[in-house]
Amino acid sequence: MPNPPEKFVVTPFEVRGTIDYDRLRTLFGTQELTSELLDRLRRISGAPLPPTLERGVYYSHRDLAELLTGYEQGRRFFLYSGRGPSGPMHLAHLIPFELCQWFQEKLHVPMYVQVTDDEKFWLRPALDRATTYQWGMENLLDILAVGFDPKRTRVFFDTRSVGTMYSLAVDVAKKIPYSTVKAVFGFPPSTNIGLVFYTAMQTVPCFYPSWRTGTQVPCLIPCGIDQDPHFRITRDLAEALGYPKPALLHSQIIPGLSGGKMSSGSGEKDNAVFLNDPPEQVERKLKRAFTGGRASIEEQRRLGATPEICSVWALWRSKFAKDEPEFQQITNDCRSGALLCGDCKSNLIARVNPFLEEHQKRREIVRPIAESLILEPAPGSTGPHGGPPLPSP
Amino acid sequence: MPNPPEKFVVTPFEVRGTIDYDRLRTLFGTQELTSELLDRLRRISGAPLPPTLERGVYYSHRDLAELLTGYEQGRRFFLYSGRGPSGPMHLAHLIPFELCQWFQEKLHVPMYVQVTDDEKFWLRPALDRATTYQWGMENLLDILAVGFDPKRTRVFFDTRSVGTMYSLAVDVAKKIPYSTVKAVFGFPPSTNIGLVFYTAMQTVPCFYPSWRTGTQVPCLIPCGIDQDPHFRITRDLAEALGYPKPALLHSQIIPGLSGGKMSSGSGEKDNAVFLNDPPEQVERKLKRAFTGGRASIEEQRRLGATPEICSVWALWRSKFAKDEPEFQQITNDCRSGALLCGDCKSNLIARVNPFLEEHQKRREIVRPIAESLILEPAPGSTGPHGGPPLPSP
Repeated sequence: MPNPPEKFVVTPFEVRGTIDYDRLRTLFGTQELTSELLDRLRRISGAPLPPTLERGVYYSHRDLAELLTGYEQGRRFFLYSGRGPSGPMHLAHLIPFELCQWFQEKLHVPMYVQVTDDEKFWLRPALDRATTYQWGMENLLDILAVGFDPKRTRVFFDTRSVGTMYSLAVDVAKKIPYSTVKAVFGFPPSTNIGLVFYTAMQTVPCFYPSWRTGTQVPCLIPCGIDQDPHFRITRDLAEALGYPKPALLHSQIIPGLSGGKMSSGSGEKDNAVFLNDPPEQVERKLKRAFTGGRASIEEQRRLGATPEICSVWALWRSKFAKDEPEFQQITNDCRSGALLCGDCKSNLIARVNPFLEEHQKRREIVRPIAESLILEPAPGSTGPHGGPPLPSP
Repeated sequence: MPNPPEKFVVTPFEVRGTIDYDRLRTLFGTQELTSELLDRLRRISGAPLPPTLERGVYYSHRDLAELLTGYEQGRRFFLYSGRGPSGPMHLAHLIPFELCQWFQEKLHVPMYVQVTDDEKFWLRPALDRATTYQWGMENLLDILAVGFDPKRTRVFFDTRSVGTMYSLAVDVAKKIPYSTVKAVFGFPPSTNIGLVFYTAMQTVPCFYPSWRTGTQVPCLIPCGIDQDPHFRITRDLAEALGYPKPALLHSQIIPGLSGGKMSSGSGEKDNAVFLNDPPEQVERKLKRAFTGGRASIEEQRRLGATPEICSVWALWRSKFAKDEPEFQQITNDCRSGALLCGDCKSNLIARVNPFLEEHQKRREIVRPIAESLILEPAPGSTGPHGGPPLPSP
């Protein structure tokens, strides 16, 4: 008997329905991020875990244990995360970059950022290339504002770095039949040939240090679990090309302020707090946000609210609760009915606006160095393995 | 009633069967290269036509009349031809380049050469990328040895020039659905995603000057008629992207020495005279070449031979008959039986070997300038329209 159809859809290009995360992990065949693994991370880093690891936002992985074992035996790795620039970035977009920054700070490992302006242009019919490029440059400032170490950080900006990326992308593309991307991404025949090719470009950063240095340098990719299919292709290829499989850390999808996935490209500007929203905008959006509250104050006092479905709680959880006791307090008071949604929202606004103000300052601080981190072919470095020097591990 | 199936197959990736060229022109929907058009070319160039135009090797076109009308009204154009480097080049590979060189010399127009090392690597399972790259560099010397003006010539070497090409390729790729390349090239689902994407890279040189300068600069592409499908896609796109449609000049397929298409990648090394064959090799190959001769000398004296199916006559026709009277003499003597195949072959060997010797000398003369003609992103020329300066028209 065939399985009943799933009530949700999760692909790199579409997230729909109410996601059963345990079921999704089983469907995707990923591993559980256990408390034992989190303990190892605490021990190796010698530091408290960041909120997204401590509070279960990251809940799934591939080969993290092997990566940490290698690290303990002296084998360095690097971090990789990316951004498809179709508009301004919102709070949830920072989540993988904040985790990367934590790993970089604690373990002193290199970080590769990919800005996939080719992909977003190919994906969105109405987007023009100049606009995608400009959003890429803007988004890059937001990413670097998270606090990466410039000495250990490099940027693949697809349409600018392609001179450095293409030879490896060509190697990768030869190993991927059309039938694979059709099956993995569900592409219809009308899909443009750029998008068909694109997964080769997304695989490049995973293999790049191994390819350039001729040694085996593994990679850790924190990403939303919806991005896992890209890297399933990457992992399937790795052996055939002689590179290590990337390890993955998967986060749950952060709910938008009106429910559903927080999205920057859908045109629903009220569904997310954008990093460039002015304070009154943030206040307006959060005051209207979808919560797990009850129909009336009286009912909520009596029965309590449901944090797990609440977009405001998701923000406390992802970053804004300053420590674990505070996060537990907020969660417990929500559930018991002691904390009402209006007060909870006001408290959050008082955290989000100062964060955004600081973020905008950090953005200006990194602006002068952003250009220098973008990988471009160095003059005279022609040939199959050309490109600028890599950050030393 | 459906049409009967054709007895031949002509695609950019496969040529098979005995080609009915008039039928092929009808199937492809191209225009006849009439004697009126050839007369216009004589008048505009003020020179005798090169052998491939005079003797019908080029027999079909798209929009050549419009291109010439524009030229007469002061609208310059540029030439574009390419090479997929999978091995050494043979005599037939020079045919489009020799025609381009003639146009450049007579009309002083820019020439773009494309070396498609990405395509050949994607197309041939057994080819590795370093080898494809090396053949690309070798082949480029053979192409430049034809005698292009370095001031008016530039090279798109795909894996090296991609930093200059990719942004335009991204624009082009967005306009091509997978279903189009599937239909035009007959790709099965096992086709790798590189080859699916590739036609976007092949379209780039056609639009490049218009894209870079923001003005309408049309292009003329001499190519084997088997390459027409690539540019049919290009022509269909041109309007949507705001660029002029490329004009085409189509040659017939030069027969190999053992019949079939002359091919460098098939491993049949005796099927063609390669540009680096030593004289004794040339002699051996031509002595064994497939001809239109009869079973016995007596029969040939009596009945004559058939030049149209002869691989030796095809070489006289493409270049080695020094003028039209000589070519007519050879053809007539072949047909009448006055010229026997052995003598004809000896005469041809005495022409081919000195040509190859000269070619090798010219190859060494262009070697020092080849690198300087390859388009690569100039340092600091970042952004969507980066790249080195164009040759002035």
